[in-house]
Amino acid sequence: MRTVDLIQKKRDGGELSREELAFLIQGYSSGRIPDYQLSAWAMAVYFQGMTARETADLTLEMAASGDQVDLRSIQGVKVDKHSTGGVGDTTTLVLAPLVAAAGVPVAKMSGRGLGHTGGTIDKLESIPGFKVELTEEQFVEQVNRHGLAVMSQSGNVTPADKKLYGLRDVTATVNSIPLIASSIMSKKIASGADAIVLDVKTGSGAFMKTLDDSIRLAEAMVAIGEEVGRETVAVISSMDQPLGVAVGNALEVKLAIETLKGEGPADLEELCVTLGAHMLVLGGRALEIGEAKDMLYEIIRKGYALKKFKEFVAAQGGSPSFIDQPSQLPTAKHVFPVEARTAGYVAAIEAERIGLGAMMLGAGRETKEASIDLAAGMLLKRKIGDLVEAGDVLVELHTNRGEASLVEAVRQQVLAAYTITEAKPAEPTLMYAVVTKAGVERLV
Amino acid sequence: MRTVDLIQKKRDGGELSREELAFLIQGYSSGRIPDYQLSAWAMAVYFQGMTARETADLTLEMAASGDQVDLRSIQGVKVDKHSTGGVGDTTTLVLAPLVAAAGVPVAKMSGRGLGHTGGTIDKLESIPGFKVELTEEQFVEQVNRHGLAVMSQSGNVTPADKKLYGLRDVTATVNSIPLIASSIMSKKIASGADAIVLDVKTGSGAFMKTLDDSIRLAEAMVAIGEEVGRETVAVISSMDQPLGVAVGNALEVKLAIETLKGEGPADLEELCVTLGAHMLVLGGRALEIGEAKDMLYEIIRKGYALKKFKEFVAAQGGSPSFIDQPSQLPTAKHVFPVEARTAGYVAAIEAERIGLGAMMLGAGRETKEASIDLAAGMLLKRKIGDLVEAGDVLVELHTNRGEASLVEAVRQQVLAAYTITEAKPAEPTLMYAVVTKAGVERLV
Repeated sequence: MRTVDLIQKKRDGGELSREELAFLIQGYSSGRIPDYQLSAWAMAVYFQGMTARETADLTLEMAASGDQVDLRSIQGVKVDKHSTGGVGDTTTLVLAPLVAAAGVPVAKMSGRGLGHTGGTIDKLESIPGFKVELTEEQFVEQVNRHGLAVMSQSGNVTPADKKLYGLRDVTATVNSIPLIASSIMSKKIASGADAIVLDVKTGSGAFMKTLDDSIRLAEAMVAIGEEVGRETVAVISSMDQPLGVAVGNALEVKLAIETLKGEGPADLEELCVTLGAHMLVLGGRALEIGEAKDMLYEIIRKGYALKKFKEFVAAQGGSPSFIDQPSQLPTAKHVFPVEARTAGYVAAIEAERIGLGAMMLGAGRETKEASIDLAAGMLLKRKIGDLVEAGDVLVELHTNRGEASLVEAVRQQVLAAYTITEAKPAEPTLMYAVVTKAGVERLV
Repeated sequence: MRTVDLIQKKRDGGELSREELAFLIQGYSSGRIPDYQLSAWAMAVYFQGMTARETADLTLEMAASGDQVDLRSIQGVKVDKHSTGGVGDTTTLVLAPLVAAAGVPVAKMSGRGLGHTGGTIDKLESIPGFKVELTEEQFVEQVNRHGLAVMSQSGNVTPADKKLYGLRDVTATVNSIPLIASSIMSKKIASGADAIVLDVKTGSGAFMKTLDDSIRLAEAMVAIGEEVGRETVAVISSMDQPLGVAVGNALEVKLAIETLKGEGPADLEELCVTLGAHMLVLGGRALEIGEAKDMLYEIIRKGYALKKFKEFVAAQGGSPSFIDQPSQLPTAKHVFPVEARTAGYVAAIEAERIGLGAMMLGAGRETKEASIDLAAGMLLKRKIGDLVEAGDVLVELHTNRGEASLVEAVRQQVLAAYTITEAKPAEPTLMYAVVTKAGVERLV
């Protein structure tokens, strides 16, 4: 088998076999096949696409390229959840205890990652004492005992995907739906998920800007799940404004606690309950979505969700007192208000600018080595549809960096992010569609 | 400027500016831009193509990447000729003295190259004493004095093209018309040509298998010539069977001598006179093709072409006595006949198999380091349309390698190359079209 022939086959619209994809990915992983051949292949995939079978085989090859977690000793159906990125995405912090309280085991491996805020692991570390480094045995035992554990992902999960992603990033081949789909799904499969619920973000602040592209990406991932026997459901949700009201690490933990108490923002609660309901159905805890949602609202109302969160925090070394008194979580030295300059309705909030501003305040990291300020971030005081007067506070900036020039730069980002209009805008859409193996169900 | 943005621009169907192409090619030449980005760009070009302006700019950048020959001190219009490869291509050996005898200066830099036989340089070296290493001063002086010189190409002509071609070869991006066209034209431009006549081969034994593709390649090269102010004309000629009757080095020199005497095979003479006529018109020695052809036939008939060849050989250190007595040129120890197994008409001769057979006999080199047997090769005794009896000699194998197994393997190649049918085939077409800046003139 020669790599150049496989590139040519894909270039000419052919379908690579499982053996051919194994040759490519294993060869690339081991360094036998050079970058310049894989980048040409990736560009050919960009133009010619891949069949569902091919995409699934690529996914399995990438999953097999590194450590694969064996969760078989955890009883029950392990349902994992993944969001395709966004700003102010507190869903995992809410969902994990919520569905665990409903009896679906949550065995979550998570990363730190680069971006506007830290990853779930960083966010949990804002709870003093919380330990994210577990052995696989501790992890499995904790899930079996408490129904929930979150640990820091091994450095060697899907190394082939990591290497290929780095190459795609510098060769203009990121934006290929089968390549994005296989990259995401390979990590979920390597993490041992039996079933997967995806939260595919769409809109100006998301990786996928259009609903059509988001649905195509969701369909590709659902098809992979179908091919590899891991049932997958995708909810297409809006990133036309940040989700919830917090962007940051400790700020999002605080918001998650409010949401678990039933006192969170409506959009965050509704999306978490919907995603959770799909997890319950896939996990065999409910027969249909309506019933599952009712169960989850009941679990929140009765305090079981918050209780599970405290149990989980305690199990991983954190003190539950922080959950009872969230004001003791890391708090920034400075809080600067950003005030509206004109009156009107909030018509749009560019999530990317908000995220960038939060990163400037210290909430995220640009490079792997950078440290995160767990207290930093933003609280959004106004969202789409809200009426504001000039001088009203739109956003609070939380930071330990007090330099006037920095604060002014972030203030400008925030003001540029907000569009204020005279006319009242239409009610924002939270969820657009659900994609399952049965097809696309449009919600609006 | 970022390479990834340029790849993306091409991927999305955009046109790169001269500055952007300069950034890419100079960066690649210098090693600043890595292979994996250029291969992704090349694959994007494969799918999206390039405009005539882009292709011309790429050509000029590649020409500028290494040594560029300055032929301005040679009087007259320097017209270069290039064939896109083929088997039994003796045209340069005939054309160079023929058009020089008509007053068009021929300043030819040629390579050794890999392939079925050596390059023009190797072929000329089969004349004892012939020197192919000249200084640029000697080269220019000889052209000014004798109207004709052939020297071995510098190792540093179009290094960017050489590097890119090597990359394309292993990334399935060879087969892109703008990339092929710019590769060929960059070498001609770097070699100092004022005008260019191209012999674009088409058919089973050519790089371009279909007439349409051959015409598209010719059009791309003519358009480059137009963009860069080097008028270019392309003749599309057949490689459905080898041209002429000789494949080898000394064997082709002998055939060239016969052709310069007016005693060569009709197809070789006709193609050479046609290509030469275009060179005369571009060189300002004739106003139109018919007149130019008449001049060239007259030059052959009067012995001026052969005389010019002898003058040229003598100027470069060879003894003209070898031209008078070609039997003294290198001769193989063995001549093995390959006989027809059935009677009928020769309907097709696969040029690639004939070329491969010649290489097996020692006429060509597979690697740069391999040595060539100047005496080895084949003489074709029957061509398309000829009637043969079983036992008639189709081909003579000339070789110094007498091993029975090798000879038998070549014999099998030759027999597989020949298609013999009961029905008389149609007259083979020698030339299909002429492509100039005015458009495509179909000849059949």
